[in-house]
Amino acid sequence: MKNISILGSTGSIGRQTIDIVGRLDNINVIGLTANTNIDLLENQIKIVKPRVVAVMDEKKARILKSRVNSKVEVLSGMEGLIAVATLSEVDIVVTAVVGMIGIRPTVAAIKASKDIALANKETLVTAGSIIRDLVKKYKVNIFPVDSEHSAIFQCLKGENKKEVSKILLTASGGPFRGKSKEKLEDISIDQALNHPNWSMGPKITVDSATLMNKGLEVIEAKWLFDVTPNQIEVVVHPQSIIHSMVEYNDGSIIAQLGVPDMRIPIQYALNYPKRVENNIDRLDIFQVAKLTFEKPDVKTFRCLGLAYKALNEEGSILSVLNAANELAVNKFLHNKISFLEIPDIIEYAMDEHKNVSNPSLDNIFEAEKETYEIIRSRWG
Amino acid sequence: MKNISILGSTGSIGRQTIDIVGRLDNINVIGLTANTNIDLLENQIKIVKPRVVAVMDEKKARILKSRVNSKVEVLSGMEGLIAVATLSEVDIVVTAVVGMIGIRPTVAAIKASKDIALANKETLVTAGSIIRDLVKKYKVNIFPVDSEHSAIFQCLKGENKKEVSKILLTASGGPFRGKSKEKLEDISIDQALNHPNWSMGPKITVDSATLMNKGLEVIEAKWLFDVTPNQIEVVVHPQSIIHSMVEYNDGSIIAQLGVPDMRIPIQYALNYPKRVENNIDRLDIFQVAKLTFEKPDVKTFRCLGLAYKALNEEGSILSVLNAANELAVNKFLHNKISFLEIPDIIEYAMDEHKNVSNPSLDNIFEAEKETYEIIRSRWG
Repeated sequence: MKNISILGSTGSIGRQTIDIVGRLDNINVIGLTANTNIDLLENQIKIVKPRVVAVMDEKKARILKSRVNSKVEVLSGMEGLIAVATLSEVDIVVTAVVGMIGIRPTVAAIKASKDIALANKETLVTAGSIIRDLVKKYKVNIFPVDSEHSAIFQCLKGENKKEVSKILLTASGGPFRGKSKEKLEDISIDQALNHPNWSMGPKITVDSATLMNKGLEVIEAKWLFDVTPNQIEVVVHPQSIIHSMVEYNDGSIIAQLGVPDMRIPIQYALNYPKRVENNIDRLDIFQVAKLTFEKPDVKTFRCLGLAYKALNEEGSILSVLNAANELAVNKFLHNKISFLEIPDIIEYAMDEHKNVSNPSLDNIFEAEKETYEIIRSRWG
Repeated sequence: MKNISILGSTGSIGRQTIDIVGRLDNINVIGLTANTNIDLLENQIKIVKPRVVAVMDEKKARILKSRVNSKVEVLSGMEGLIAVATLSEVDIVVTAVVGMIGIRPTVAAIKASKDIALANKETLVTAGSIIRDLVKKYKVNIFPVDSEHSAIFQCLKGENKKEVSKILLTASGGPFRGKSKEKLEDISIDQALNHPNWSMGPKITVDSATLMNKGLEVIEAKWLFDVTPNQIEVVVHPQSIIHSMVEYNDGSIIAQLGVPDMRIPIQYALNYPKRVENNIDRLDIFQVAKLTFEKPDVKTFRCLGLAYKALNEEGSILSVLNAANELAVNKFLHNKISFLEIPDIIEYAMDEHKNVSNPSLDNIFEAEKETYEIIRSRWG
């Protein structure tokens, strides 16, 4: 039996984690957290029966407390999140919150010797070097939940990392693959939210459309697998069947394939090193029939190049990249800017930033704050 | 340093092994054997400086002896082969001979506690159950040299065999993929020898054209990886880039890819568990651009179905399948029968055979002999 806490249980990955846990008989859910969605959290409490839950929003936490059985402890705010991330009986913390809010609870969980099933991108993107060092110090494991990083993790199983020559990180290319810059001028929100293969939250779906999602994944891959940026190559593979590959020094490439269903990597992260039978649809390679590969169009989809640029510099600029993207996507989703302005905003924020190498957590949060201010002073 | 003997060093795999050994600095060649090609063997002796060689043909062995330095011991016949396969200082025996001649030296090598880099198909196809039991008893390793089995072996690295749900054995489909039976009536020897992706010896190239090669590989896979015949699925993949895949019980598929170059699996077998840097061309996934998959046409290419039939029955019938195919291909290569008569001959021999379950080595060789007689009595 493994005991887990799920941070961000009401989001897309959180809900799928609850689904998978219901199909497995070896996982106990001890803790759950949500930002504001207490209706769904209340339902999840009934299903998985956690001992402790936390709601980021204090008011909603009080409302929830009045609704649930007194056996469930209801906490609130960042303190509550950190408490759920460090509960004594928990083995694995699933970090499925969205945004930099995931960093402090993840750090706390590692310091409490918990393994991390990592779905929160911002933690590694902005605080990658800190997390890497903590993971070594506290001898915990990070089990990636992202399908691409889970694939790489699987392709590395039983192999010697020193024999890796490069990582081939696959990308669907998003809904606008093959489109010219001119065609992207008037992209609507609905068009950007219409991902060809994966069903995900709105922020990450827009990130897939701009290729920033792949840029963030390149950054995560660097910290997770201890490779250099030029050892990570993005391969556009529109079918999303090969979830990523690793090339070794002898010319052999190991790939992981499957149907595009996040529950497979979630389940893998929770059960590692075991694989567990499930009733998720199997890949029918004959029905797929064709897998294609192309280079990413970095001229049109500028976010990917910006991510590599930030990664090559390292330091607090990674936090700027992430925060600027978060705000720009938010503005796009609220119809305040056009699709093509997203990279413009990010580039502006990066240019304005004075990079801090080896940043502390405080430096990282300051860089986030400054980035918001810089962008707001120009774009409102 | 690893010490190796190469049985069949003058054949296609043997020559490529010599090539790879020349590029590595951690492999000593102690023994070589050849059937009759003493000119090439003499050259190889100069290059790799073995301590002992053996020539199957006694007369040729005497000629070679008169030509080489007296420091090289020259042996002959099956005794010589077995001696080279069991030299005390040898760690790995590369079994690259063609035909059932490989069985006795392989058995002797295992009994002498040598690891086997297995390239001789007939050993596992006809004596699979015996070899499997000996490998367990003497605790040796079999490192498959075939690109497909090497791929499967790599896809299983670090994994639990109990979690395997099936093996997806890829097949190029050979030069006649997509052709109807009618179009195969008048196939010439040259057409059959023109393989689209791999450069191999004539027997195996014809086997690729009939799909018998894949049938033999299915049989080998059963014994190598301890799965049932219905856990092995043949996937026609004309580009020969994915060399095979393994599907696990969680729906994940692990695949091994690379350029179609036998030196990669040979090198892997000799260095396992290490991977070693080399200067073989790397796979350019963008240049490949497209990988396709289709079901094998078992109605037109009947040899594959015959192989599954024999494998489901097990026993001496596997030896009949192999011997009948060997003789039929030989007759085709000598213009005695047509391409489509190959499966007819095999099926006839199988129908005529009274199967012996759990056959001894003697049963296996008797079945071979009987098969030759049965076929010759009808086809001459």
